[in-house]
Amino acid sequence: MPPKKGELALIAQIRQQFATSPTALIAKGIGDDCAILRPPTGTEILVTTDFTLEDRHFRRDLHPARVVGHRCLARGLSDLAAMGATPLAAFLSLALPKDLPSAWTRQFLQGLQSLAQASKVTLAGGDTAQSPTHHILADIVLLGTAPTGTSLRRSGAKPGDRIYVTGQLGAAAAQLRTLLAGGKVRTHHLPQPRLAIGRKLRTKATACIDLSDGLSTDLTHLCEASKVRAELDLASLPIHPTATQNDALHGGEDYELLFTSSARIPKSIATPIGRILKPQKNHPSITADGIPLPPQGWEHFKQ
Amino acid sequence: MPPKKGELALIAQIRQQFATSPTALIAKGIGDDCAILRPPTGTEILVTTDFTLEDRHFRRDLHPARVVGHRCLARGLSDLAAMGATPLAAFLSLALPKDLPSAWTRQFLQGLQSLAQASKVTLAGGDTAQSPTHHILADIVLLGTAPTGTSLRRSGAKPGDRIYVTGQLGAAAAQLRTLLAGGKVRTHHLPQPRLAIGRKLRTKATACIDLSDGLSTDLTHLCEASKVRAELDLASLPIHPTATQNDALHGGEDYELLFTSSARIPKSIATPIGRILKPQKNHPSITADGIPLPPQGWEHFKQ
Repeated sequence: MPPKKGELALIAQIRQQFATSPTALIAKGIGDDCAILRPPTGTEILVTTDFTLEDRHFRRDLHPARVVGHRCLARGLSDLAAMGATPLAAFLSLALPKDLPSAWTRQFLQGLQSLAQASKVTLAGGDTAQSPTHHILADIVLLGTAPTGTSLRRSGAKPGDRIYVTGQLGAAAAQLRTLLAGGKVRTHHLPQPRLAIGRKLRTKATACIDLSDGLSTDLTHLCEASKVRAELDLASLPIHPTATQNDALHGGEDYELLFTSSARIPKSIATPIGRILKPQKNHPSITADGIPLPPQGWEHFKQ
Repeated sequence: MPPKKGELALIAQIRQQFATSPTALIAKGIGDDCAILRPPTGTEILVTTDFTLEDRHFRRDLHPARVVGHRCLARGLSDLAAMGATPLAAFLSLALPKDLPSAWTRQFLQGLQSLAQASKVTLAGGDTAQSPTHHILADIVLLGTAPTGTSLRRSGAKPGDRIYVTGQLGAAAAQLRTLLAGGKVRTHHLPQPRLAIGRKLRTKATACIDLSDGLSTDLTHLCEASKVRAELDLASLPIHPTATQNDALHGGEDYELLFTSSARIPKSIATPIGRILKPQKNHPSITADGIPLPPQGWEHFKQ
């Protein structure tokens, strides 16, 4: 389907804002049937895609466009961080309602661009369309690289490994609760994907996942992939000052890294919060202070 | 945001239907934070993303789910074909309305899968969500490879080159016109991306683009990227028996390849339809039998 007038303007805006010259890594960015990437030799390619859909992942009345743009890219970058990857290129598919004020689009792209610049990732292509409804629809694709064979996975945790988490937990959930209750927030939470730590962990972590769905849910994924159990020590959880223990255990969108290691990890990098145990039949994947902790990953906008 | 019950079922269905063991090229498919790809050495990576949005790119009352799934993948594969690439992996982001019958999803995935198998491309990941509206929303990402430096671009056409097109033009537009008028069609048009021809053209074509928006629009893109003009010979257009000349000139979704070459291309591969000319100030990009032909790429569902 050929672009409509509004879509042509959007494409022009994106091209202008994200204009790049060919580099050693990106031989062709926006402007052909495909982008052409030339990853460094000896690397493997990491790929992740993440939707950002209005009224599912954000609400226009609660989240400023700049914050939505930042988070849209952060979701994909955090997946790269969890694999220990270096960002290579981003692709954005964006469908906008006909009546969307152009200021929204501008601020969304600005939010996305400033995180892209800080993370040294280039927007190398994507797709645009007019949204079939009044909803803003985005899908972000991230490609990254890591030396072949060094990418971190969810599946390598071993009994005896310590469980670690970066940063503090629960801030995003606590803030969203405030917003949903009609409260104001001084500064919107802008998650910072842990790319530098992820790269450091390539040789240190046995398994890694990013905290997008909440600790209880994401640790369950890690345990299932690694075929192990986990015991959490609740007193050691690095809970954000604004958050409750419940936010820290089940709140989503923290975008911190949850990983396991047999090595001692410095406190400056991450906090130890528990141990990996041998699997046992009919035992829950996770216990916290000895009590079963089912995955209760938390949902934004229940329908 | 953690998956909901329906979303978990969808993920399970996709995982089961597209289950793959690690291969030399895809070290990790669905099931981690990112997929891990290991493209052959000496290749560059081609990347394209394409939306398939209900009421923009298809209509549920006109297009069977299987056909929508086929076309969703075909759109991306055709972009790879236009660059001369070999498909490496596909990623599908899919948001479905809560009340969508599971048969729709099954048939959509079947349509996508049978083209994936025929094209030897693996679904290696993606994202799922509940659609915020009653609309089905998909975004397909295709990665391909080509020997470094051999990818075809839109930008290499030279004055004196012949213009060629594969297959026949206008069938998709003619069929859609029938469907929109309430008519029935015996078999739905299933475009076959020209991957094998695209690879052959790497050493023969000077520029290439796929016909997704219609000949007049896509040839304009090629001329603009190559900084040339084009003269079409209308009598030579390979018009599909069901289509009009207008369908062939401006109809979208043919997914044939439009390319330029200084070599003689056999009739079995493509039909010569015109010549590339030197650019001239204030002259239109395209003339057909000497008369200016503005881009009139055709739209499915005008709003």
